[in-house]
Amino acid sequence: MRPSEELEQRLLDEIMGIQVIDVHSHVPWEAPFARSLRDLLGYHYFTELAHSAGMDRGVLDAETPDEEVMPALVEALSTFDNTVQYSWLIELARELFGFQHRRLTLDNWEELAEAVVARSRRAGREREIMADSGIQKVFLSNSFDDDLEAIDPEVFVPVLRADLLVFHFPDREVRRSLEKVTDVAIRKGADLREALEKVFRRFQGSGAAGVAVSLPPQLQLFPVVEGDLDTAVGKAVQDKPLSSDETVTLRCGVLFALSELCAQFELPMQVLYGAVKGAYRHGVHQGKDLLQAGDTLRPLLPLLNAFPQVTFCLSVLSDSQAQELASYGWLVSNVVVCGHWWYDSLPAYMERDLAARLQSVPKTKLIGFYSDMYK
Amino acid sequence: MRPSEELEQRLLDEIMGIQVIDVHSHVPWEAPFARSLRDLLGYHYFTELAHSAGMDRGVLDAETPDEEVMPALVEALSTFDNTVQYSWLIELARELFGFQHRRLTLDNWEELAEAVVARSRRAGREREIMADSGIQKVFLSNSFDDDLEAIDPEVFVPVLRADLLVFHFPDREVRRSLEKVTDVAIRKGADLREALEKVFRRFQGSGAAGVAVSLPPQLQLFPVVEGDLDTAVGKAVQDKPLSSDETVTLRCGVLFALSELCAQFELPMQVLYGAVKGAYRHGVHQGKDLLQAGDTLRPLLPLLNAFPQVTFCLSVLSDSQAQELASYGWLVSNVVVCGHWWYDSLPAYMERDLAARLQSVPKTKLIGFYSDMYK
Amino acid sequence: MRPSEELEQRLLDEIMGIQVIDVHSHVPWEAPFARSLRDLLGYHYFTELAHSAGMDRGVLDAETPDEEVMPALVEALSTFDNTVQYSWLIELARELFGFQHRRLTLDNWEELAEAVVARSRRAGREREIMADSGIQKVFLSNSFDDDLEAIDPEVFVPVLRADLLVFHFPDREVRRSLEKVTDVAIRKGADLREALEKVFRRFQGSGAAGVAVSLPPQLQLFPVVEGDLDTAVGKAVQDKPLSSDETVTLRCGVLFALSELCAQFELPMQVLYGAVKGAYRHGVHQGKDLLQAGDTLRPLLPLLNAFPQVTFCLSVLSDSQAQELASYGWLVSNVVVCGHWWYDSLPAYMERDLAARLQSVPKTKLIGFYSDMYK
Repeated sequence: MRPSEELEQRLLDEIMGIQVIDVHSHVPWEAPFARSLRDLLGYHYFTELAHSAGMDRGVLDAETPDEEVMPALVEALSTFDNTVQYSWLIELARELFGFQHRRLTLDNWEELAEAVVARSRRAGREREIMADSGIQKVFLSNSFDDDLEAIDPEVFVPVLRADLLVFHFPDREVRRSLEKVTDVAIRKGADLREALEKVFRRFQGSGAAGVAVSLPPQLQLFPVVEGDLDTAVGKAVQDKPLSSDETVTLRCGVLFALSELCAQFELPMQVLYGAVKGAYRHGVHQGKDLLQAGDTLRPLLPLLNAFPQVTFCLSVLSDSQAQELASYGWLVSNVVVCGHWWYDSLPAYMERDLAARLQSVPKTKLIGFYSDMYK
Repeated sequence: MRPSEELEQRLLDEIMGIQVIDVHSHVPWEAPFARSLRDLLGYHYFTELAHSAGMDRGVLDAETPDEEVMPALVEALSTFDNTVQYSWLIELARELFGFQHRRLTLDNWEELAEAVVARSRRAGREREIMADSGIQKVFLSNSFDDDLEAIDPEVFVPVLRADLLVFHFPDREVRRSLEKVTDVAIRKGADLREALEKVFRRFQGSGAAGVAVSLPPQLQLFPVVEGDLDTAVGKAVQDKPLSSDETVTLRCGVLFALSELCAQFELPMQVLYGAVKGAYRHGVHQGKDLLQAGDTLRPLLPLLNAFPQVTFCLSVLSDSQAQELASYGWLVSNVVVCGHWWYDSLPAYMERDLAARLQSVPKTKLIGFYSDMYK
Repeated sequence: MRPSEELEQRLLDEIMGIQVIDVHSHVPWEAPFARSLRDLLGYHYFTELAHSAGMDRGVLDAETPDEEVMPALVEALSTFDNTVQYSWLIELARELFGFQHRRLTLDNWEELAEAVVARSRRAGREREIMADSGIQKVFLSNSFDDDLEAIDPEVFVPVLRADLLVFHFPDREVRRSLEKVTDVAIRKGADLREALEKVFRRFQGSGAAGVAVSLPPQLQLFPVVEGDLDTAVGKAVQDKPLSSDETVTLRCGVLFALSELCAQFELPMQVLYGAVKGAYRHGVHQGKDLLQAGDTLRPLLPLLNAFPQVTFCLSVLSDSQAQELASYGWLVSNVVVCGHWWYDSLPAYMERDLAARLQSVPKTKLIGFYSDMYK
């Protein structure tokens, strides 16, 4: 072994020994692990590639029987066995299910399918998976109206996912659910803030780690005037159509209110920046969003400047923003740099970007995929 | 040799053994190879660097005699012998013309000039060049009114270059040539589509491999209303000035019509995205275009979404879009990722970008510089 | 040593032997070196990271006594000892002050503090520092009204920093100082040009190397009509508020006038492109600017095209523009590619970017951090 290889091995050993905390997941805590191989391969990282490579989207309909879905999916997998997503699948098949092969094929997928089912029946399976993966805790993405009592606090940490509140408050169902869960009749801005405060109180009581929100490119963000917010809330609760300006006002009003509550409750806000929702109309479930090259964090500055006491954990989706994010972590005191996400989570990008972060951001402000942010 | 060097060599040997198909060229099929060193050095990859480094543009005038042009060009070359473009020149001089030196200088350029002339006189020279280069077929860039009968189908494959149709239909010469070659009197949208269909029929009859078009940054693309297209076509054919809206309508109308014909004729559309035409006013012939950093493919989405059955082979010009293109290849079923082009064709960029493509795009959707796409 | 290591060493030895010229600095020529460790650590590259990592901004107030500032700063340093900025600090401490440690701590900072004071008292200290650093000359950033007579021409080279003129001519103080130093009463465009010409004459007389200006993203640049400029100047000198259009007209008028004078006086213009001034409101002194991802040089084209005889030395701040800059150096005859700057000066970015420049830009058009541009 050459000296540089020895060093690599030593670093890797140290890294693999770290007990990690997954600061962002969509794990469904009431059924947190796959019960079948169909469950596993149904993850959008695999279905979107299968569809991209030509597999018919109809294959994935819930009513299609396993005998049809599974061979179609396994066959589609062979078109992207060059990808890192495929290598993740094989790694987890080997590490978590004792799969021995290096490719998943029509000849061996049933082996894996059986192992998935068999292991899913073991008692304490979620703890076993976490131990095998070196994961200590997993952050969740919870709706404001989730039943937090049901969550196992030894394994999971609630996080308030705020997208519905920020972008869909005018939807009658969202509004009514918010009124019901908080027991606040919302008529104006102050009511909305009162309801959000009650949500925060409930989340904090359940040990929540903060708020998370996904923001699209080219957002306009500004502090809103109370009267404008009252007008927008008033129209929304009467099911009246909002103008484009009123829609923006309402979004900003909610987002600034959430940030103010983060300050008050001393909770961080995680911002996942840059997904263009529904960009690819024909995509599979959860596989319709794209990034936008040339996107910038600049629209976030009014929010970052307005709440210097709130820690913002920022992630971006576009490689052309990677340096911008590192620079925000370098300069802006309330910005923490957080992980690599979806289209930006390839080794080819992460290698250079991690080097840049290590070279320029205070080490106290870096969060990996998994991290010790939660204490 | 260390193990990693052996692996490199083995991979390179395999790669060099591939018989390639050049899916995009501007080869003039009626005179497909250089007859003189002046021809060769007249390629814009060399003249634009010579001019950039200070050579007077006037040197390149057709009437300047060889005795003046050649020493000036050779001298200018020495200012960019650090570049990959220079290394391409030396490689082709050595591989195709038996040139022995590692630099082209005032002392040895006449050797190369003589070799170029001598070899150009050999029978079957184009086949010799292709064999020496490992190239099997070369795609062309053909105008809609090109005489396709004259093209040697064993060597060349026609491709309909659509820029004139999309951007210059209002030019009287373009319009008249289209009417003449299709025998359609164009008065409204339907006539235009009929003419384009006849062009497609003729190209398909000659074994054409598809359509290619270069689209600038910040294009607006949307499906047009028939009445609006009729108005725009009507004004154009009467030589009336088009408003800015009508110009955009006409462009979109032609581009969507071409895409519809691609669906009907089952042909792919190659999109070269992002060149700002004529950006540098003082540039040499073919050396006036630049890229735009921060450009995005997002404006293409309406077209990609509207024709899911058409394969779009996309190339971008800007490194800040490299990840965006890979992500489109990853997610969007009808997008194929195609090569590296002009400002983006440097080893420094290609290394990381190729790694990212191999790590994230189904292997069935990757096209190199040269590829087996055409069958 | 393996062959590649030997080559690396040979290249490094050659590079380290080059006597360099620093083409851009903010060195205060009347007090060009640190008199204390507080001076040194007060550089914004260190204070902005200390503040970003949590140090209170108030620590840096001029009235805070050394006993309080120094331990706070030294402690803050330990939060970013992973960064390249920290390594620069340690390198200069070792090379210029004989510091022996690899970390600056509460236990050893006083050693360094004493060395800084002791060495600052040596006669000819600035020449000693330059000899130890291999620096031959240092370009300055001079205001139009600086006293150039006082500058030591053996060490320093004046450069006219034009930001005040371009962006702040309407400020009464700037205007009056310009009138005073040039003895021109400015009432209209022609007067402004006369004053600027006098400034140029004075700077040229003192051996100035050119003009430098920092331009923000998304600037509008266009040649102005004389009448419009007269109106804008007229309002400015009467302290009347300018409309947004008039403000842009005035800026363009000054910038184009400066470029014209660069042509007349045969001086280059250095453009530092892309800093968003004051983006982070809570930042420390000189630590409030950020880059903008997705920025583009395209707005500069009208200026580059209008003055083909003026050499523009361009630098960008955003990695997403790195390729764009290299391409401008490749194609545009009057563009020279200049260094790496602030957020873009990390090894992780510079490695790939320098490779790309060496692979595509004529070697006569590349300027390093330090360079021999000035002759």
